[in-house]
Amino acid sequence: MIPKGFLFSTVEATIKKPGRKDLSLIYSQVEAYMAGAFTTNKVKASPVKLDMRKIKSGKGRAVIVNSGNANACTGTKGMEDAVEMSELVANSLKSERPLVYVCSTGVIGTPLPMDRIRPKITELVNNLGESSLEDVAAAIMTTDTFPKVIKRRLKIGHKMGVIAGICKGAGMISPRMATMLCFILTDIAVDQETLNKTLHEAVKRSFNRITIDGDMSTNDTVLIMANGMLGNPRITAKSESYVAFKKSLNEVTYELSKLIAQDGEGATKLVEIEVKGARRETDAEKAAFSVANSNLVKTAIYGNDANWGRIMAALGYSGVDLREDKTDIYFGKIKVAGKGLTTGRDEEAGEVLRGKYIKIVIDLNIGKSSAKVLTCDMSEEYIRVNAAYRT
Amino acid sequence: MIPKGFLFSTVEATIKKPGRKDLSLIYSQVEAYMAGAFTTNKVKASPVKLDMRKIKSGKGRAVIVNSGNANACTGTKGMEDAVEMSELVANSLKSERPLVYVCSTGVIGTPLPMDRIRPKITELVNNLGESSLEDVAAAIMTTDTFPKVIKRRLKIGHKMGVIAGICKGAGMISPRMATMLCFILTDIAVDQETLNKTLHEAVKRSFNRITIDGDMSTNDTVLIMANGMLGNPRITAKSESYVAFKKSLNEVTYELSKLIAQDGEGATKLVEIEVKGARRETDAEKAAFSVANSNLVKTAIYGNDANWGRIMAALGYSGVDLREDKTDIYFGKIKVAGKGLTTGRDEEAGEVLRGKYIKIVIDLNIGKSSAKVLTCDMSEEYIRVNAAYRT
Repeated sequence: MIPKGFLFSTVEATIKKPGRKDLSLIYSQVEAYMAGAFTTNKVKASPVKLDMRKIKSGKGRAVIVNSGNANACTGTKGMEDAVEMSELVANSLKSERPLVYVCSTGVIGTPLPMDRIRPKITELVNNLGESSLEDVAAAIMTTDTFPKVIKRRLKIGHKMGVIAGICKGAGMISPRMATMLCFILTDIAVDQETLNKTLHEAVKRSFNRITIDGDMSTNDTVLIMANGMLGNPRITAKSESYVAFKKSLNEVTYELSKLIAQDGEGATKLVEIEVKGARRETDAEKAAFSVANSNLVKTAIYGNDANWGRIMAALGYSGVDLREDKTDIYFGKIKVAGKGLTTGRDEEAGEVLRGKYIKIVIDLNIGKSSAKVLTCDMSEEYIRVNAAYRT
Repeated sequence: MIPKGFLFSTVEATIKKPGRKDLSLIYSQVEAYMAGAFTTNKVKASPVKLDMRKIKSGKGRAVIVNSGNANACTGTKGMEDAVEMSELVANSLKSERPLVYVCSTGVIGTPLPMDRIRPKITELVNNLGESSLEDVAAAIMTTDTFPKVIKRRLKIGHKMGVIAGICKGAGMISPRMATMLCFILTDIAVDQETLNKTLHEAVKRSFNRITIDGDMSTNDTVLIMANGMLGNPRITAKSESYVAFKKSLNEVTYELSKLIAQDGEGATKLVEIEVKGARRETDAEKAAFSVANSNLVKTAIYGNDANWGRIMAALGYSGVDLREDKTDIYFGKIKVAGKGLTTGRDEEAGEVLRGKYIKIVIDLNIGKSSAKVLTCDMSEEYIRVNAAYRT
């Protein structure tokens, strides 16, 4: 199941080390409407700067992606290389000035080995159709331990469209994205403005709500391509099918975010932190991030220690409005703290922590807003000290 | 070498586990001028709240400290226990309503075992003089691996005064202090207002500039006692000896801060990050903290990998004014990045990282302000993944 009209290719360019595909191409047979979201890091990789210019057109035909080298902190040479990659693909594609986007992920500060990338471009273009979306998901991995693919089928009128997303994550995952590359492809026809708005809303509550290690990358990029080959009437914010499209896109980005959190470097558990009862959504988000970024909370989860005191401390320094004597904390369905005090159920809660998917709910009980943040636990050593601290 | 007129006592109250001294008393033979700095966490432990009230008097006679239990998130019972500890000591001391401060450090959310603390108070008071300052430094440790004591001799007129500081740190060390308890004792006579101002300035550039794991505790406390038993004319901001006193106090707090960073949980190296050439000191501080809090930077240092790209990324997301093409980065004396680009000296810089004390200097080259932040490296696993990422 893939959206109509997309072709894929992967080759080995030995960008960092031999023995793996590290150069990929995503191609739409017709020009697609596109939208993108990019890192807010002030230090941006050259391909990010290039794509930010290209995305203003709202259109595109292809995306070339390399892993193994981020092409970040590489100065004017870096920009020249990104432009050259884009143009080499455009020329090989032989269509009329196709818009080709460029994404890079990997080591920062080392120039791209263009002498190894350049000769592979023709092969990359010629092989279009010989790789699957899953092959691309594997080729864009860096320290990821598994490829990340999420698909949703969606009925638009009588026709069955597809939204398919792939991404890579693992390190440098933080608020406002990560060394996170994500490509979402759909054959559903969507108006460009609507596509852009819907993507940004989806990113806000998914990729922008993951944190693995608090670090934010120079290369984060989310691109969506809607090539309209399903042939449905173009969706706008007023269309009957808009809500369903939006819901499916949100699901794809949220499920991809979960895969990223689950595959955080050294993670053994996926952790979802929900803060509710906050005065405002920004407070809920800030408080949830404070808990999710706490190394002490993450190591306690790794150690199956329902150490809710560390959560209280992290809430306390988050700076948001809260009252200690109103705050409830749950591990799964077990209430470990009520009105800021122990309920004596730490042991039961410790059992909950033995699972692979941990849900922590914090109710501030002073308002009606909520937010969810995804993260993972933190394993070993730094870690052994903290996990052993209480037991 | 200890300041005149201070006595110490330590006993075992089996607060968490048997076999170690966990209850200490610091006592001044005459009432001392006091000043304090406390956690800014909204969730404050009961003893912190109590001391914040007491410190308004600017005076005090004794400090009782327990390790093993933070008496935080323990509600009204927690405050009753803190008050009782203070009063039991005051009654045993039998002087006229002496002001006794209380500090606790350890597990959050569990009530203090008052049934084990209560019967030990008389012994604690009776034993005054039988323990040393070093014994107290050992008794207040939690996950610390060594006791932390710094002393400075200071000539005031013809007399030789002493400033002695002890502290405990290790986990939850972050901006605006830590589960950090620090007690500074001096026999030098200092005016209370001057003492207060000098302490806060010293804390700002020492304890408030350490970060181990980004977590901030509910219990941070710094207390200074100046009992004046040296007999010098009371120092004020206008005194000739003020500058020397201030300098010595700054040294004591900065050296104690170094000991805390060096003893960060799992640390193998002390790391000092200096950002200079910033537009303003707050920018320099923010940028330095962003780098110091980056798990990716800390794991690279552990792995002896001069991965300056991760430093650039952390600077970029710190949000401060900077220009990538003006930024220089040094590991020790080795310039690894000039104007945002590699200098090709990563290997030499990697050698610098094999030391135990690592100095990283970042010159933003856009202003004249600077700030130093202390941290440590991050070892193992989470860690192994990151340290191995580039090599």
